[in-house]
Amino acid sequence: LEIKKFLDAQNITDVVDLVYEMPEYDSQIIANMSVHRAASVFKLLETSNQKDIIHKLPPNKAAELLNDLPADDRTDFLEELPSNGVRELIKLLDPQERKITLSLLGYPENSIGRLMNPDYVYVYSYNTVAEVFDIIRKYGKNSDAINVIYVINHKGELLDDIRIGEFILNTPDTLVSDLMDERRVISLNAYDDQETASEVFKMNNRIALPVVSQSNKLLGIVTIDDVLWVATEEYSEDMQKMGGTQAFEEPYLDIALFKLYKKRVGWLIILFLSEMLTATAMQFFEVEIEKATLLALFVPLIMSSGGNSGSQASTLIIQAMTLGEVTIADWWRVMRRELFSGAMLGLTLGTIGLLRIMMWQQLHLYDYGPHWLLVGITIFFTLIGIVLWGSLIGSMLPIVLKRLKLDPATSSAPFVATLVDVTGIIIYFSVAYMVLKGTLL
Amino acid sequence: LEIKKFLDAQNITDVVDLVYEMPEYDSQIIANMSVHRAASVFKLLETSNQKDIIHKLPPNKAAELLNDLPADDRTDFLEELPSNGVRELIKLLDPQERKITLSLLGYPENSIGRLMNPDYVYVYSYNTVAEVFDIIRKYGKNSDAINVIYVINHKGELLDDIRIGEFILNTPDTLVSDLMDERRVISLNAYDDQETASEVFKMNNRIALPVVSQSNKLLGIVTIDDVLWVATEEYSEDMQKMGGTQAFEEPYLDIALFKLYKKRVGWLIILFLSEMLTATAMQFFEVEIEKATLLALFVPLIMSSGGNSGSQASTLIIQAMTLGEVTIADWWRVMRRELFSGAMLGLTLGTIGLLRIMMWQQLHLYDYGPHWLLVGITIFFTLIGIVLWGSLIGSMLPIVLKRLKLDPATSSAPFVATLVDVTGIIIYFSVAYMVLKGTLL
Ligand SMILES: [Mg+2]
Ligand SMILES: [Mg+2]
Ligand SMILES: [Mg+2]
Ligand SMILES: [Mg+2]
Ligand SMILES: [Mg+2]
Ligand SMILES: [Mg+2]
Ligand SMILES: [Mg+2]
Ligand SMILES: [Mg+2]
Ligand SMILES: [Mg+2]
Ligand SMILES: [Mg+2]
Ligand SMILES: [Mg+2]
Ligand SMILES: [Mg+2]
Ligand SMILES: [Mg+2]
Repeated sequence: LEIKKFLDAQNITDVVDLVYEMPEYDSQIIANMSVHRAASVFKLLETSNQKDIIHKLPPNKAAELLNDLPADDRTDFLEELPSNGVRELIKLLDPQERKITLSLLGYPENSIGRLMNPDYVYVYSYNTVAEVFDIIRKYGKNSDAINVIYVINHKGELLDDIRIGEFILNTPDTLVSDLMDERRVISLNAYDDQETASEVFKMNNRIALPVVSQSNKLLGIVTIDDVLWVATEEYSEDMQKMGGTQAFEEPYLDIALFKLYKKRVGWLIILFLSEMLTATAMQFFEVEIEKATLLALFVPLIMSSGGNSGSQASTLIIQAMTLGEVTIADWWRVMRRELFSGAMLGLTLGTIGLLRIMMWQQLHLYDYGPHWLLVGITIFFTLIGIVLWGSLIGSMLPIVLKRLKLDPATSSAPFVATLVDVTGIIIYFSVAYMVLKGTLL
Repeated sequence: LEIKKFLDAQNITDVVDLVYEMPEYDSQIIANMSVHRAASVFKLLETSNQKDIIHKLPPNKAAELLNDLPADDRTDFLEELPSNGVRELIKLLDPQERKITLSLLGYPENSIGRLMNPDYVYVYSYNTVAEVFDIIRKYGKNSDAINVIYVINHKGELLDDIRIGEFILNTPDTLVSDLMDERRVISLNAYDDQETASEVFKMNNRIALPVVSQSNKLLGIVTIDDVLWVATEEYSEDMQKMGGTQAFEEPYLDIALFKLYKKRVGWLIILFLSEMLTATAMQFFEVEIEKATLLALFVPLIMSSGGNSGSQASTLIIQAMTLGEVTIADWWRVMRRELFSGAMLGLTLGTIGLLRIMMWQQLHLYDYGPHWLLVGITIFFTLIGIVLWGSLIGSMLPIVLKRLKLDPATSSAPFVATLVDVTGIIIYFSVAYMVLKGTLL
């Protein structure tokens, strides 16, 4: 009882911290709170702690907790469990909650459907304001953050959304249909990607939005706090993909070292094996390198220029795709823009490269031999070719990945650089062969 | 009037699209809407369109619009203008709005202070519930999304926040002090970074949070929709920095090609000039390369391994810092972890590299000459060294940048790769010199 009183005086987040500090008491802490506050704590915990708590709680307490958890958070937790575990837990739910959960689990991962919760109030257009207030009092208990009422017809189709304030301003016998307006209702589609929800919320100044099916049937609502979670998770996910690691669930400093190694080594090995093709390509040109060692000196400079322009282009496009500014259908426009930008950027770097060789030669900082100007010209054309190539690969790869239903963010800087590196060597030595044939080669 | 009626039947976002489609009519569109809806459209527009509209509107219309704009959005717009432009526009504001705006502009960019809006309702602990309702009716008009009332004392210090629902459940003569609870009030600090607001909102299931000064004086509130904007802007900013471009304000497909070039070329030139050091480093080892051309074949493979491990480490740390999981003070813990991970990762890649050379040699796929085993050993140790070095540089650079009050996200993959490339060549040829002295070199 002492403990109950102490926990009651704490904020939810303080209790969350407490669970992290004393994970051995996690189930006791949860069991000693009112079920509603316990659910608020539970939904903020990491999946590993959630599993531990459910495992340790007596079944009746676990059932109580799961039944009180908001449907979207419950789905989020269940989707992380092995499927037999899900089945066991779903048995603990009330028939009503079970139905909701099973239906939410039916939507694809990362779809808006998974974020829905059923705590909304709907009315019909022939209801009066007085009837609406009765309905709110009866069904609106859990939706305290929600200040909008949804109007549907008998097919369940969403007709309008009306602020509670509007009802208050009108007489009790006013019909809902008199309060409805002409504007298209702003709604989300249950099968759309969660990322689109974030855009719609940003543009519409709402704290909750209705979710409808293809046929405009009202299925639930999504609240802005869940969208904020998605937005920041999306950020972490994309960053990790772009950095070439698998997703981490724990904070960096808490991951066991071996796990940290395991999550990172996969990508590095894949990149390493692909980069081995550079050695193969170089072997192919070994005779040329022996004849003109000079050419080897510029290999790192040239390859990194291709990689840098490529990762710049890919980041631009990944980001534009995430924000919905660029879609697969725009590929041709993107390619034209990148052809032009890549050529301009290549021309710039090529000119700097040529100038550098001319200056070093003239100032006697280094001797590039009798054919130094031809070497400079090789570098010039190679840089144009390679920067152009890098920009093209970098910009097209995210679009191709999206087309293949993969995540565009996978086309990270290292991935693009690797692709460009191998082809870069071929471009370099081909240009060299053409320019220097008969002189150095 | 026809136009007015048409605009009235449109959603805010549809009007925003209309402005983008017909920018030449932007000021007419704004002028033909009710000022409140006009402000809702205006705040969603890009800065360039906003400037254009304010410029074209007659001063009295511009004043009306600016006065109706929520304070946080007004500040956001003004901060993008040259300072003499700001002064002109501030003159158009009512004394009350002017005071609010000037005070918001006094907070540093990217601080929570800039997101504040003053549309909240405060009461004193000695007020009765009946008095609270009077205050809400009088001052709570603009705060329709807000369902929390703040309790302060006569010094203006924040004592508690109470949901409107609680007042409704109690008799009119109940004192506010009877409704107050023991829990610490969850609040934001005006001088804290906007990114911290996102964390606090995620953990606390609120749609608005109070902002206080160092001395706990209530200054304003921040609403979750503005935090969602910050979270997604932050995402774009970091992505652009990591991709090595300057910030874009327009969508990718709308930027003029020359501007696109200009925003990208800067970083590429800086990286190119730095990568020139690789040529210098290679020149330094030209004699060795001539003696053992073989060594040149592995340069791209080795350098990319350093770059990849480095960008992996830097992305991990940037992200952990953004989420607040790692701070400057943790540098030593991070370094220890990266020393270990880097060594493990290097050992893995080194072993693969050694095995590849052994296999190719034994299967007669390529002849690495009589000293092939020594070459393999060179590659082995170089990879350990370079991956370790890459991980260290990659993980420490974001921390150092943060220490220097720069944005850690600047330590993008290309930047880290460039740093690692130059030192990588030195590591490679030094190891080669030690292992191969007397045989190949
Ligand atoms: Mg979770
Ligand atoms: Mg949630
Ligand atoms: Mg997810
Ligand atoms: Mg409507
Ligand atoms: Mg929720
Ligand atoms: Mg994604
Ligand atoms: Mg703006
Ligand atoms: Mg805003
Ligand atoms: Mg800003
Ligand atoms: Mg309180
Ligand atoms: Mg706002
Ligand atoms: Mg940042
Ligand atoms: Mg590279």
